[in-house]
Amino acid sequence: MLRYLTAGESHGKCLTAILDGVPANLVLSEDDINEELRRRQVGYGRGNRMSIERDTAEITSGVRFGKTIGAPVAMIIKNRDWQNWKEIMNVWARGNGQGARGEEVTRPRPGHADLAGVLKYRQYDIRNILERSSARETAARVAVGAVCKKFLDEFGIKVMSWVVEIGGVRSQGPAPAGFKRGSGVRSEKDIEDIFKLAEVSDVRCPDKNTAQKMIKKIREVKKRGDSIGGIVEIITIGVPPGLGEPVFDKLNADIAKALMSIGAVKGVEIGSGFKSALLFGSQNNDEMYIKDKRVAFRTNNAGGILGGISNGDDIVVRIAVKPTASIFRTQKTIDNYGKEIEIKVGGRHDPCICPRIVPVAEAMMSIVMVDHLFRARL
Amino acid sequence: MLRYLTAGESHGKCLTAILDGVPANLVLSEDDINEELRRRQVGYGRGNRMSIERDTAEITSGVRFGKTIGAPVAMIIKNRDWQNWKEIMNVWARGNGQGARGEEVTRPRPGHADLAGVLKYRQYDIRNILERSSARETAARVAVGAVCKKFLDEFGIKVMSWVVEIGGVRSQGPAPAGFKRGSGVRSEKDIEDIFKLAEVSDVRCPDKNTAQKMIKKIREVKKRGDSIGGIVEIITIGVPPGLGEPVFDKLNADIAKALMSIGAVKGVEIGSGFKSALLFGSQNNDEMYIKDKRVAFRTNNAGGILGGISNGDDIVVRIAVKPTASIFRTQKTIDNYGKEIEIKVGGRHDPCICPRIVPVAEAMMSIVMVDHLFRARL
Amino acid sequence: MLRYLTAGESHGKCLTAILDGVPANLVLSEDDINEELRRRQVGYGRGNRMSIERDTAEITSGVRFGKTIGAPVAMIIKNRDWQNWKEIMNVWARGNGQGARGEEVTRPRPGHADLAGVLKYRQYDIRNILERSSARETAARVAVGAVCKKFLDEFGIKVMSWVVEIGGVRSQGPAPAGFKRGSGVRSEKDIEDIFKLAEVSDVRCPDKNTAQKMIKKIREVKKRGDSIGGIVEIITIGVPPGLGEPVFDKLNADIAKALMSIGAVKGVEIGSGFKSALLFGSQNNDEMYIKDKRVAFRTNNAGGILGGISNGDDIVVRIAVKPTASIFRTQKTIDNYGKEIEIKVGGRHDPCICPRIVPVAEAMMSIVMVDHLFRARL
Amino acid sequence: MLRYLTAGESHGKCLTAILDGVPANLVLSEDDINEELRRRQVGYGRGNRMSIERDTAEITSGVRFGKTIGAPVAMIIKNRDWQNWKEIMNVWARGNGQGARGEEVTRPRPGHADLAGVLKYRQYDIRNILERSSARETAARVAVGAVCKKFLDEFGIKVMSWVVEIGGVRSQGPAPAGFKRGSGVRSEKDIEDIFKLAEVSDVRCPDKNTAQKMIKKIREVKKRGDSIGGIVEIITIGVPPGLGEPVFDKLNADIAKALMSIGAVKGVEIGSGFKSALLFGSQNNDEMYIKDKRVAFRTNNAGGILGGISNGDDIVVRIAVKPTASIFRTQKTIDNYGKEIEIKVGGRHDPCICPRIVPVAEAMMSIVMVDHLFRARL
Repeated sequence: MLRYLTAGESHGKCLTAILDGVPANLVLSEDDINEELRRRQVGYGRGNRMSIERDTAEITSGVRFGKTIGAPVAMIIKNRDWQNWKEIMNVWARGNGQGARGEEVTRPRPGHADLAGVLKYRQYDIRNILERSSARETAARVAVGAVCKKFLDEFGIKVMSWVVEIGGVRSQGPAPAGFKRGSGVRSEKDIEDIFKLAEVSDVRCPDKNTAQKMIKKIREVKKRGDSIGGIVEIITIGVPPGLGEPVFDKLNADIAKALMSIGAVKGVEIGSGFKSALLFGSQNNDEMYIKDKRVAFRTNNAGGILGGISNGDDIVVRIAVKPTASIFRTQKTIDNYGKEIEIKVGGRHDPCICPRIVPVAEAMMSIVMVDHLFRARL
Repeated sequence: MLRYLTAGESHGKCLTAILDGVPANLVLSEDDINEELRRRQVGYGRGNRMSIERDTAEITSGVRFGKTIGAPVAMIIKNRDWQNWKEIMNVWARGNGQGARGEEVTRPRPGHADLAGVLKYRQYDIRNILERSSARETAARVAVGAVCKKFLDEFGIKVMSWVVEIGGVRSQGPAPAGFKRGSGVRSEKDIEDIFKLAEVSDVRCPDKNTAQKMIKKIREVKKRGDSIGGIVEIITIGVPPGLGEPVFDKLNADIAKALMSIGAVKGVEIGSGFKSALLFGSQNNDEMYIKDKRVAFRTNNAGGILGGISNGDDIVVRIAVKPTASIFRTQKTIDNYGKEIEIKVGGRHDPCICPRIVPVAEAMMSIVMVDHLFRARL
Repeated sequence: MLRYLTAGESHGKCLTAILDGVPANLVLSEDDINEELRRRQVGYGRGNRMSIERDTAEITSGVRFGKTIGAPVAMIIKNRDWQNWKEIMNVWARGNGQGARGEEVTRPRPGHADLAGVLKYRQYDIRNILERSSARETAARVAVGAVCKKFLDEFGIKVMSWVVEIGGVRSQGPAPAGFKRGSGVRSEKDIEDIFKLAEVSDVRCPDKNTAQKMIKKIREVKKRGDSIGGIVEIITIGVPPGLGEPVFDKLNADIAKALMSIGAVKGVEIGSGFKSALLFGSQNNDEMYIKDKRVAFRTNNAGGILGGISNGDDIVVRIAVKPTASIFRTQKTIDNYGKEIEIKVGGRHDPCICPRIVPVAEAMMSIVMVDHLFRARL
Repeated sequence: MLRYLTAGESHGKCLTAILDGVPANLVLSEDDINEELRRRQVGYGRGNRMSIERDTAEITSGVRFGKTIGAPVAMIIKNRDWQNWKEIMNVWARGNGQGARGEEVTRPRPGHADLAGVLKYRQYDIRNILERSSARETAARVAVGAVCKKFLDEFGIKVMSWVVEIGGVRSQGPAPAGFKRGSGVRSEKDIEDIFKLAEVSDVRCPDKNTAQKMIKKIREVKKRGDSIGGIVEIITIGVPPGLGEPVFDKLNADIAKALMSIGAVKGVEIGSGFKSALLFGSQNNDEMYIKDKRVAFRTNNAGGILGGISNGDDIVVRIAVKPTASIFRTQKTIDNYGKEIEIKVGGRHDPCICPRIVPVAEAMMSIVMVDHLFRARL
């Protein structure tokens, strides 16, 4: 129902996104998109690349006089550094530990798509792979997600995300519920409060104490030229029951696909997730009761989805984010000639991308929700 | 490229599967499929339903003289108990704790799709939901997966799965590597050996000691009328590098969707998965070296996929399986009239479905692999 | 939104269809489907194969107590001659002019998919191709279409089809409007009357005089061992405005695909179609006026679709049906060894399939309409 | 396999196209695309809009150092008049016969998508519909098609198109075979020669005499403020046998969809097409023989496709193009208030778009061919 494509390399002219299927008459401005792009660019632990990015989107079609017209929405995010890209490419090339300006890059870095890409696309110059599988493409997804968020707003559905763990640091005490791995039941008001706390945190962690420990952790890791991973939680509130297809396009399956397609994500879990492996059925089943004349659940281990269909409770998803592959330490690899070598990657890289993955995760989740709203013919 | 649909309710006449896109000239017999169906039916902790299932598939089209002809392959798995289904329906109805024969079932069970389904499909009789979202449908998927496995065989690709954890019980000592959460590097020979050990285990756990503890755990849980979850690992060997699309249909994203679409699965992780949240980049990156004139990796934290593309190493996936929702204990719920009630589910149910989910997981993984083999134009 | 797959060869056990996406609570019985299957089997000019076909569908899932439950609907149409298929295969083999029983068939027939299939599927025995691309598969589509028709009924949408031309014979005088190539404006009542007249005609032509001439034509052609083509019209009434996507899945584009996918169809036109090439804009544009307080069109050259979107008028489509490829005359061809030979096809074949293509065309049209009803979120 | 989306309104900033699935290492430049865009802009009978269009494409991603890198290819075609669009909008508004500057346009024009769009998108201002369903979007498709043509070149496949009829004027004498409706057999050399003749013709008709009559016809029609339709033929040479799926995505079905999705197309026929309705099987079947040790056909009534699969002969398709809906004559319509009114459309419009539809048809055909080449795993 909803179709989109994105394009764009880190050192190309611009990122491009086309989103087809947006209904007419949705109020939509570039500000709506720019706010989400801004969120993608802030976060403790960022390297210096931010200074050259500063993204703004240009809506080039599908919107007229501030409203969508039912036609495909196209958006462009210019790479501001495009004019001096050659210089940057060279900096980056040096950063990759690989010789002089203009030379080809032929040493696949551990933890990157370099080798897989070189083999798939029969490329010799790894730069072609780097450009293609660049994390920069996520900015285009965030733009698409921003449009979807506007649409979800009309239905009272809100997608919020925050960081729950970085390098083993997680809240121990009486922390906001959203911070706990597992899934208690929280009011929508609680969740929105947690989200607000997270948004003002440098590491997007709603719990201040933990946030400080996380920052300390990232600082240490950075000093050693290393990187660190973490866990991000995505909560969606206001979800009507009945979204999702029974067999082939289950809501949880589409969510898993959408989130796993974000570069650094190595795991996706819904509700009690991997913890459910430790639970008894009598613990994991969410008992129902009547609250304000509506069905409510005493717990939310289901994470809001049962049998592939939303049950009306909040959708609770967590993703595992691996440590940034680009580290400033000597690593062993081979080169494209098949020789064993050592490599030391340079450049500017976040030691922990968890805070910045938050809006990307929200975007992917929002796209899935809109698609299933359409399918459900609501 | 590869398209399939399945249909069939637990108390209907039969399950049906159609698989379109199978190339011509693939040797395929009903035995190939029946062997996988058999694997789906065995496993410690099964309830008594097995005695009425005993599935065999009938290939009704797409195969002529033992070979596929390029046309869609249709398969039918009869419900042997179809003749006496009314009786069974009644047993089941009673089992659901809900009164006399033939009555409607109107009490959504905790942990089931009952409520979500009733709301989505505007059904009053929950039986209609139960039938639709029945785990029995997975038999049709196993049939589809069996055809895919035959195809993968031609390319030397083998999908194998086993149980690594049940209710917190996992191997502690010097266990087979496949048993460890995380991902060491194992030879293909090692993995095939582990698989063989798992196949002869009642709980499909390759480590004998742990298997015994698991059985003990299941027995205890069953005695209490409760159920338990676990973790299943799926390893795919012989994977060529280059499978997967760079942005939209990443191999890991499609795997996540396929596995998350299995009823009881609440989480999917690839390679180091959720553990990667605890690792430094210097630990998580897989260094490369030359082994027998080919690229090899010292570790496999990537789980065989980087940037959405297979890197040539084994694909390592783990899924979290929740405890069976059907338990023999009194639970609180509401009925379709909105009254708070108690329910005690009867019938026959596995206290732990992990062993039986193994062939289903293999089937889903096989389908994804064939699809991506086709896309890669190999 | 609506997904279906069909499978089945002419000499296989059965045809199979799975239709996913049917909403719950639609009243549906096997009679609904059998009536359409019956319509597919009658029609002047049929060969003798009919006696062995007589199709009935069995709904094996997705329906419970006479109503759909939201799960995929599976249908099976048994080949009643399956028991003695070997004998039939041999008859057919002889009919193909190709030697003794059980021998492979290696002479591609002109006008058939034999050669294309042999090359695509790397088959030696043409029978494998014949089975695969058999017109018999259309029975499964008619079954799928029958379900869609039931759904369209709920919205007051009715798809009707008839024969407007066979071998150059078409109505000359003051014939029913539906008979005219081109498109006058008719009331829905008129169209339903035309359809009723067509249904009682042996050649499904609503105009009695023309029907007699068509029958005469077919008789002559048959005597000479030859075959003849024609034109079939499909009218859909009760269509709400606004169906169809603006750019990628235009309603007319999807209709063209659906109808062109029927075996013998070589052309599809909508509204004034190929005649529009001869018209001035001032003739072809349909002027609007107000009738009973609603917008109406003075003509319907648009065929009910403008810019890919239904405009509320009847959808008028015509398809060109080629003469049956199987004729009883000596034809030149090659064999699979690359030798030039002559072939004389035997067996039983309709000299003109136009009357029997009518329900198939209705089925395909109905499937498209339901799909677009879903997309339009009506 | 091949995915693309296009976006862009006639008076928006730019058109955008993203094409996903292009293999790496294809040599591709903006010149390749601009040449096709140029072809779309020339042709006798054009109005004056050309002077403000003059399209050039900018490749903004997917290509590096003159070669594709396997990432999605994005292209942008700027609307050069974007800076003065307000003025143009007003001119156009006046042209639409509807009052002063800046006013809303509320009178649906006969023959346009205005009414259908207003109803579908619940728009009041028809300009929003006009923008959306603008023929200008075809420039983006031509850009996508240009990339596909480059890819087809690598396989020796060439898609060529020309005009065979305008307003009833068609070649009578011993004209180039490509000009005949029906389908004789021509050598690939013949076809390329016909194409060259067509390309230098103002009306893209390969037959000089007929071309002059067509021009005369268009001139007459224009003088009367009217418009005229025609027929365009598309021939594809060098097609390997075996392209196309047997049941669901037949090659002819996908071609029909692709071509019917072009704005003014009201009919699509393949090979003998609608003429097949007049032929006997003995005339329509294409007999096979051996020529230069390869299978050849004595005729090509099949149009290169049988049973949905290419048979190795040229693919011959013809489309019916309706007369331009925008004419300079008073027409009856209603306004958005439901009042019967008269309208006289102004502005600049081609009285016959056949010559300009040629490269659009080639583009759509090329996209289908690449998609099926990928599916066939060639």
